[in-house]
Amino acid sequence: MSKIKAAIVGASGYSGEELIRLLLRHRQCQIGVITSRQYDGQAVETVFPRFSGSGLVFSNPDVKQIAEQCQVAFLALPHGLASEFAIPLIEAGLKVIDISADFRLRSTKKYQEYYNQEHPSPELLKKAVYGLPERYREQIKSADMIACPGCYPTSIILAVAPMLEAGLASTKGIISSSISGITGAGRKVDLPFIFPECNESVRAYGVAGHRHLPEVEQELAVAAGVPEVAINFIPHLAPINRGINSTIIMDAEPGCSMDKITEAYNNAYANEPFVRVLKPGKLSDTKYVTMTNVCEIGYQLDPHTNKLIITSTIDNLTKGASGQAVQNMNIRFGFDETEGLL
Amino acid sequence: MSKIKAAIVGASGYSGEELIRLLLRHRQCQIGVITSRQYDGQAVETVFPRFSGSGLVFSNPDVKQIAEQCQVAFLALPHGLASEFAIPLIEAGLKVIDISADFRLRSTKKYQEYYNQEHPSPELLKKAVYGLPERYREQIKSADMIACPGCYPTSIILAVAPMLEAGLASTKGIISSSISGITGAGRKVDLPFIFPECNESVRAYGVAGHRHLPEVEQELAVAAGVPEVAINFIPHLAPINRGINSTIIMDAEPGCSMDKITEAYNNAYANEPFVRVLKPGKLSDTKYVTMTNVCEIGYQLDPHTNKLIITSTIDNLTKGASGQAVQNMNIRFGFDETEGLL
Amino acid sequence: MSKIKAAIVGASGYSGEELIRLLLRHRQCQIGVITSRQYDGQAVETVFPRFSGSGLVFSNPDVKQIAEQCQVAFLALPHGLASEFAIPLIEAGLKVIDISADFRLRSTKKYQEYYNQEHPSPELLKKAVYGLPERYREQIKSADMIACPGCYPTSIILAVAPMLEAGLASTKGIISSSISGITGAGRKVDLPFIFPECNESVRAYGVAGHRHLPEVEQELAVAAGVPEVAINFIPHLAPINRGINSTIIMDAEPGCSMDKITEAYNNAYANEPFVRVLKPGKLSDTKYVTMTNVCEIGYQLDPHTNKLIITSTIDNLTKGASGQAVQNMNIRFGFDETEGLL
Amino acid sequence: MSKIKAAIVGASGYSGEELIRLLLRHRQCQIGVITSRQYDGQAVETVFPRFSGSGLVFSNPDVKQIAEQCQVAFLALPHGLASEFAIPLIEAGLKVIDISADFRLRSTKKYQEYYNQEHPSPELLKKAVYGLPERYREQIKSADMIACPGCYPTSIILAVAPMLEAGLASTKGIISSSISGITGAGRKVDLPFIFPECNESVRAYGVAGHRHLPEVEQELAVAAGVPEVAINFIPHLAPINRGINSTIIMDAEPGCSMDKITEAYNNAYANEPFVRVLKPGKLSDTKYVTMTNVCEIGYQLDPHTNKLIITSTIDNLTKGASGQAVQNMNIRFGFDETEGLL
Repeated sequence: MSKIKAAIVGASGYSGEELIRLLLRHRQCQIGVITSRQYDGQAVETVFPRFSGSGLVFSNPDVKQIAEQCQVAFLALPHGLASEFAIPLIEAGLKVIDISADFRLRSTKKYQEYYNQEHPSPELLKKAVYGLPERYREQIKSADMIACPGCYPTSIILAVAPMLEAGLASTKGIISSSISGITGAGRKVDLPFIFPECNESVRAYGVAGHRHLPEVEQELAVAAGVPEVAINFIPHLAPINRGINSTIIMDAEPGCSMDKITEAYNNAYANEPFVRVLKPGKLSDTKYVTMTNVCEIGYQLDPHTNKLIITSTIDNLTKGASGQAVQNMNIRFGFDETEGLL
Repeated sequence: MSKIKAAIVGASGYSGEELIRLLLRHRQCQIGVITSRQYDGQAVETVFPRFSGSGLVFSNPDVKQIAEQCQVAFLALPHGLASEFAIPLIEAGLKVIDISADFRLRSTKKYQEYYNQEHPSPELLKKAVYGLPERYREQIKSADMIACPGCYPTSIILAVAPMLEAGLASTKGIISSSISGITGAGRKVDLPFIFPECNESVRAYGVAGHRHLPEVEQELAVAAGVPEVAINFIPHLAPINRGINSTIIMDAEPGCSMDKITEAYNNAYANEPFVRVLKPGKLSDTKYVTMTNVCEIGYQLDPHTNKLIITSTIDNLTKGASGQAVQNMNIRFGFDETEGLL
Repeated sequence: MSKIKAAIVGASGYSGEELIRLLLRHRQCQIGVITSRQYDGQAVETVFPRFSGSGLVFSNPDVKQIAEQCQVAFLALPHGLASEFAIPLIEAGLKVIDISADFRLRSTKKYQEYYNQEHPSPELLKKAVYGLPERYREQIKSADMIACPGCYPTSIILAVAPMLEAGLASTKGIISSSISGITGAGRKVDLPFIFPECNESVRAYGVAGHRHLPEVEQELAVAAGVPEVAINFIPHLAPINRGINSTIIMDAEPGCSMDKITEAYNNAYANEPFVRVLKPGKLSDTKYVTMTNVCEIGYQLDPHTNKLIITSTIDNLTKGASGQAVQNMNIRFGFDETEGLL
Repeated sequence: MSKIKAAIVGASGYSGEELIRLLLRHRQCQIGVITSRQYDGQAVETVFPRFSGSGLVFSNPDVKQIAEQCQVAFLALPHGLASEFAIPLIEAGLKVIDISADFRLRSTKKYQEYYNQEHPSPELLKKAVYGLPERYREQIKSADMIACPGCYPTSIILAVAPMLEAGLASTKGIISSSISGITGAGRKVDLPFIFPECNESVRAYGVAGHRHLPEVEQELAVAAGVPEVAINFIPHLAPINRGINSTIIMDAEPGCSMDKITEAYNNAYANEPFVRVLKPGKLSDTKYVTMTNVCEIGYQLDPHTNKLIITSTIDNLTKGASGQAVQNMNIRFGFDETEGLL
């Protein structure tokens, strides 16, 4: 069987590197075009020696070339730029899987509020599907434009949505205290991210108004079936390369019990290949999910305060970005959903 | 001026090491006796090469010898054992500064609930003073028995108490999501703490019922002037040696504003040598307090949810243990409070 | 096509964990038996949550059971114990791939000198093949007993052998200054390996007489075609999980040039799937080989001292242990040599 | 007693930060002027929160102001710039302690070869003293211009010089395989130094021709009393903040023994406050010297190859830079040599 060809547009960051890693071992998709303005003309292995022998060479992004050679395009671009590629590529018949933030928020108003610019393409936004397979698998199967969730939101929504759907926790007062590894900041050359500023350092940032906040609130509102949910999302950085741990605290609703929580997660995820619900009382650990596409969830009820406490860990570059993108491609093209991801 | 002599009882752990480091540069106190059952007879420098040249030698703990030679005794023992030394040493006229957990909780019932044993010395407990200088300085000045706070509680109480006292935040629904370096687990040889199990790992633990919880609740109730406060305290481990970051989320009371918060912290800490309150909106970072006795506090109001979010960082071995113990000694003996700590 | 079945004997350490990871994605081999005395009866996922869903359960090692169910056995046992399993399993017709140290040294005298015990099975030793595919591929194809090289030796021998074979460097005065991540010490619960003792620490150890030394000398003598080679091998620990960097310094022979070195490496490795020789003057980095089976080699001539300096990096758990073991199995059973390893 | 006043010129890097830390606790010197073009006018605490409460403010460097207000000037500038300040300040009567590289090499030819520019001030170079107190204490006492050694050279020279002076090792074939923490690269915002590129990475660099090489060779030649010594110096980076480990391999001369080595080190360092020679056979560890001004030396003879192997560790920012600078000031001004450094 011949493989489909993928374009990776904007491949010089850590999400791009992870996508290359995953696609190089994919049995039904190969990389057709790989672009980077910065490294145009250079072999991918000069930037990522890990991929030596791949023969891949960065080129300047060229919509026409991609349209002619590929069936799917992964966009890993700074926000605001995705539609420039997405619109013509979809018109040319490609499926677009976007790792950027532009098509995650249903509300152009929220987009403007959090990204300080008008939404670049409200029309395309209407067609975009939120690429969280555990919640939108059916829509993904026929979507032309799949907007992969942010890394933090993936960890939070997967943990919280089943609780809200089962009515086990209140939509009010939800708090996620999340901790991310430094690749979450991107391959960014900036003083706060050099080694001595991150090593032996733990710090919160963006405690009010982080860009991933409205995305989480949007999806939790959907899960709860209410118009709006307001939460606190408090991100931190810790000196690890990969991994996010979200510790979520919610008010348990009357009748909530460990058994009911277990049951609700089983209902949601018993057949999911990439969600691992731990035994009651066990907590998750980022080290058990790094370099995998798995979201690991642990939970505990605190009778002392009647709070439900959930820990949810993912690899921010895999389930939090490129792995989920490949999972979405697998679904969209009818491949085995786990292909390239085990 | 001649120096007083101190005993360090149980000096082979990380708190003991930090105490040695601090006392070796103290100008008014010197180490008279240093004990370790495990390393009895060995030079301290064989265990901690950093102190080579100090001439210190571990001995088996001997109450009589300590009583004869020292004016102050620091106890760094597993819980349950402190009173065995404390009682005779206080009778012999020494001041005892306890780094263990036995004399922190006013309630013997809570002690039994969280430590699974009867309190070993309810009589002595009545005399003990909670050794958090920023809150009990006057009592410390004349105490025979000073119970140094736990590391997590130090970071949380210093951040929260002024808010409750000023009526700016509710006593209900307080949450502390705290992250500690691995020395917080002690110099403990156990599988979860070997390097490959901690490195590249972030994980929550003891999310309900950690032993530091009742201590925090006790002191927050005092601050709020209420009989009881129930909070959620959720500790995590991150791969750093030293440091705790506590991110605290509280419900802002009506009238709470950034200005009022600033004012309340100024009232509490303007003259405190070891509390650094950051400019409004700035957040703290463990790396700015490691190897110092400082507690660094940042804060932000989230209008979106009406929450007050505070970050509070300390070095768990300094302000969280041995530095605070030295600060207490300085206060008790009338030395400059910062001696040996700058 | 049906898969062959493998036994992993002694699977509770980091090499065992890596073997499980690799075999779970292998298309021609599956795990039939997995043993651990310590965890007998427990699901593998309770020890390694990463493998949840695998259904694997640790059992006590039982030669008869293994012989009945498997075609190949991987031994990951402390030294001295391998032959107890290897002998009956080979008699029963299995191929044995040993990750321990017992069958690496051709000389029982050297074994006794470095391991402080008589060799447990000199007869079997005669049949064992040194499992470094780049040097013994033909012998591996028909071996019943394959002794996988140590991690440090793999990194050193692959770098040095081609230089000696091509006569570009002297056999005298070879030095390898090697740095290993902490998993190299095994999943060992011992004070020097707890996090705070390893983090922010770089240290040499075993600078004279490390057990990997005679193994390297043996293979370099073979490469040089001389009876004996004496080298200095100086290992260090650095705070990373995985990876070894060996920096090797050799006296360049007359006529040695960068071109000749390049040519010699090309001759040796142009067709090797798991050796990556960098462009002249580029140096290797452990981060480009972690979680891969690749050995990355860089080299430079120092005209100042006429020394040839080579850097050689591997993942100690993959190419340095379990990846190489799988590579050996692939060769022995006629599978694609890269199966399960890309 | 009134304190002398010091200027720190170019204080925004890690050496500058360490100098501030040390001088803030110095009892005979205070910071008079602190300069940074980049942060001119900003409070030092906005860049280094650790120093909040110090009241220090960065200013643009102004020779006249420094000359009027200070008695000593520490220069922490990029190479090539020191003389611009040093010449007028010395003329104005100040003592200059230079942490940059401009005045370390006696040979302007070597300077040009390794720094790719003419030496900016050959006249001043003639007066400069190499600021390694253990070797040039007498000259430092009366020097106007003290050139502090590089970090790597400090670790290597202190370890090797006594061996050469005692004739215990050959001047030929000396190799130093050194490993540095990332602060050694400075507070430099560059891709190879961001956290994810350094964490979980060990790598060699500059293996032939590093700028610290001629400095080491110069001083080893002095120690050996020969015109020239050629060595191999091979630096590596490992993911720690602070610390250098140099592992040095030398040919033992006939008659060399562990006893003689011990004796030679005792002769050299028995009275040195900042050199710690370990017991025979013990090796050094960076973690025992971080945040101290100590150089820790371990040694072992390898009878197998007749090599002498030495490990030498320092904190690159303290003994390798700013601590040594303070030690030099203490000597020059007749203060207790350890003032501010214990």
